[in-house]
Amino acid sequence: MALTLRQSDHDFETKFAAFLAGKREVSEDVDRAVREIIDGIRRDGDKALIEYSRRFDRIDLEKTGIAVTKAEIDAAVAAAPQATVEALELARDRIRSHHSRQLPKDDRYTDALGVELGSRWTAIESVGLYVPGGTASYPSSVLMNAVPAQVAGVERIVMVVPAPDGVLNPLVLVAARLAGVSEIYRVGGAHAVAALAYGTETIKPVVKIVGPGNAYVAAAKRLVFGTVGIDMIAGPSEVLVVADRDNDPDWIAADLLAQAEHDAVAQSILMTDDEDFARSVEEAVERQLRSLPRAETASASWRDFGAVLLVKDLEAALPLVNRIAAEHLELAVANPEALLPGVRNAGAIFLGKYTPEVIGDYVGGSNHVLPTARSARFSSGLSVLDFVKRTSILKLGPDQLRALGPAAIELARVEGLDAHGRSVAIRLNL
Amino acid sequence: MALTLRQSDHDFETKFAAFLAGKREVSEDVDRAVREIIDGIRRDGDKALIEYSRRFDRIDLEKTGIAVTKAEIDAAVAAAPQATVEALELARDRIRSHHSRQLPKDDRYTDALGVELGSRWTAIESVGLYVPGGTASYPSSVLMNAVPAQVAGVERIVMVVPAPDGVLNPLVLVAARLAGVSEIYRVGGAHAVAALAYGTETIKPVVKIVGPGNAYVAAAKRLVFGTVGIDMIAGPSEVLVVADRDNDPDWIAADLLAQAEHDAVAQSILMTDDEDFARSVEEAVERQLRSLPRAETASASWRDFGAVLLVKDLEAALPLVNRIAAEHLELAVANPEALLPGVRNAGAIFLGKYTPEVIGDYVGGSNHVLPTARSARFSSGLSVLDFVKRTSILKLGPDQLRALGPAAIELARVEGLDAHGRSVAIRLNL
Repeated sequence: MALTLRQSDHDFETKFAAFLAGKREVSEDVDRAVREIIDGIRRDGDKALIEYSRRFDRIDLEKTGIAVTKAEIDAAVAAAPQATVEALELARDRIRSHHSRQLPKDDRYTDALGVELGSRWTAIESVGLYVPGGTASYPSSVLMNAVPAQVAGVERIVMVVPAPDGVLNPLVLVAARLAGVSEIYRVGGAHAVAALAYGTETIKPVVKIVGPGNAYVAAAKRLVFGTVGIDMIAGPSEVLVVADRDNDPDWIAADLLAQAEHDAVAQSILMTDDEDFARSVEEAVERQLRSLPRAETASASWRDFGAVLLVKDLEAALPLVNRIAAEHLELAVANPEALLPGVRNAGAIFLGKYTPEVIGDYVGGSNHVLPTARSARFSSGLSVLDFVKRTSILKLGPDQLRALGPAAIELARVEGLDAHGRSVAIRLNL
Repeated sequence: MALTLRQSDHDFETKFAAFLAGKREVSEDVDRAVREIIDGIRRDGDKALIEYSRRFDRIDLEKTGIAVTKAEIDAAVAAAPQATVEALELARDRIRSHHSRQLPKDDRYTDALGVELGSRWTAIESVGLYVPGGTASYPSSVLMNAVPAQVAGVERIVMVVPAPDGVLNPLVLVAARLAGVSEIYRVGGAHAVAALAYGTETIKPVVKIVGPGNAYVAAAKRLVFGTVGIDMIAGPSEVLVVADRDNDPDWIAADLLAQAEHDAVAQSILMTDDEDFARSVEEAVERQLRSLPRAETASASWRDFGAVLLVKDLEAALPLVNRIAAEHLELAVANPEALLPGVRNAGAIFLGKYTPEVIGDYVGGSNHVLPTARSARFSSGLSVLDFVKRTSILKLGPDQLRALGPAAIELARVEGLDAHGRSVAIRLNL
């Protein structure tokens, strides 16, 4: 049974604030171990990579090679069921099409004084994509990370994926091929992140590292940040389903469980204005759990972090929606467009009863890498913008320098930066 | 004397790589102290803020109040010289005008299948702006941080600035007024960052914290990241001046010193294809140093981190420019537009002999908060985009779900996520 909070209760605000402040992750302190691994890679390169892979993944890279070969990828593609390849291609094409609209435009203009200004966008030169091994080795995540990089114009897209006991998910290789990944290495963990950041004999360093991973991978990304860029550190997934009574409880229950099955610390929240409907959804959750292969994970998530928020009025509850700032927000109401303008903080919004969040995980076209743990208040999902950077451009002639120079000299003066003032004054014979 | 590297030397590549790998900062390990300060603020709120300010800034906030009053700001504005106010207004207006062009546009469209997709941008609700105290308390930095937030539509812009021994730079208050800052508190250090992130009785928490600070401030920003957003952690400033022989050596020397006077770990680099010109610039640097108030700082920077790169051909040297990825890049050549397309990595580019970098510090209109320490390879200067976030929007009807659903179900199947598949299948009676 999930937690139920009633807006009509006198202590709702206290309980809701406590609910928001709840943490779903114990941050493991693995920094010391990760520092040692990074130092090992910097010192010994491939040799260390081989040794760590032997220790952590029980694989002999001296036999298999560090790089995944073209022949291996060809074999994975040949062995993949046609329906799967077609589904991945559909997803890839839709992600590409949507993300192509995100390419920022350069801006170069001349202002009234004749000063030329500009913003110019260029692609990052190389990107490393971390893909987890084992059961969380998702081909869809390969597409969601690699396609925007490719759309941005990144020339070199390097994938690392651990092969525990020598096993790689062949569909991850298929997705990499479809998404234009240029190099694949069968390494994972903090040592793979270190190899991407600092390079080894086999792996040339990249400029930015993206993709999800465990506590070691997250710690390694934090530690190499600065030497390379990194994307956000993703937390456990969450969904907030805002539903009126005119929904099939089974549909809503299925959506809550789709989130809950990810992880025992995933979070599914139902917000509704109808207590009977809420009870029906809860019953449907219990019923559906019985036939779910990942029932253990999903029921732990629902029991420990699931919540039912009973509000007086859905539209009036939008401030609560904004405080939750969910990674995924479903608006399963008759007129979702009426609620939309009031939603400010959410990673992605799914409108109406025929848009389950799962469509966004795979084939909607938008990205499924989204801000978790209330960070939608200040950050955005992965996009083409994460693979480009902006350079500003400024150009003055003598006339423009005469017009603007004195103000610059004055500000340099009051800031006590005499060489700043001189750099302008000397050009104006002042 | 700065370091000289000649491209014609046989060991240039080795030396250049070592030069690039050089660190200019000793990262102080202040995490433990900062953790204690953050815990103190979370536990004791204003009481802790008052105690830390007494200890670190020798100020009694119980007497002065934590908030800077409207009367104090009024007094600062009234006392400011008119020329200074006008220079700040010119800077403010030019920053506002340039940054207004950065506002991203919402995108909502329907694709060929009838799926509605969109990206919607909204402003972050509140931002905390950290302003250092003492000699680095720059009014221009207040403008550069606050104006983009205001342009983005941030409703609540909160400034914190320490008042060591009770002293505030009145021009920082003037700049805050001009830039639309809504609240000002006379606190600094890690405790001010903690107060912005977690709130106290007096200071309501914000959603994101921006602005430069010392090692304690930087460590505090890293530690509160996740609870709030943060901007990049700025390192020491740097300039790369690419100059042909047809420059006045004194102009170029002034530009190198404008960077060097910031900080003993600032870095000024001259790249030229003419050794005689390089020597003339070095002589001009030595000459100008003699009459510079901040000569001690500037000469330490030039001696320890300055460099002259003698290359065979400026255009052919663009790969080196891109590897340096300078925060500031001056192209002081006859035809800077010819070099521009080859420049990929730079925070800001200043074109031609009449565009000293200092114009960009103050009144150019572009932002002076730029990526340092080679991070222009993967990140951008501060912009309106740092104060907004994007929500993606997806809307399907029954027909669209029928078209896309089977592919989603297939991908859920191969990823072993049955509840994902069910959430789609149940709506299609599959």
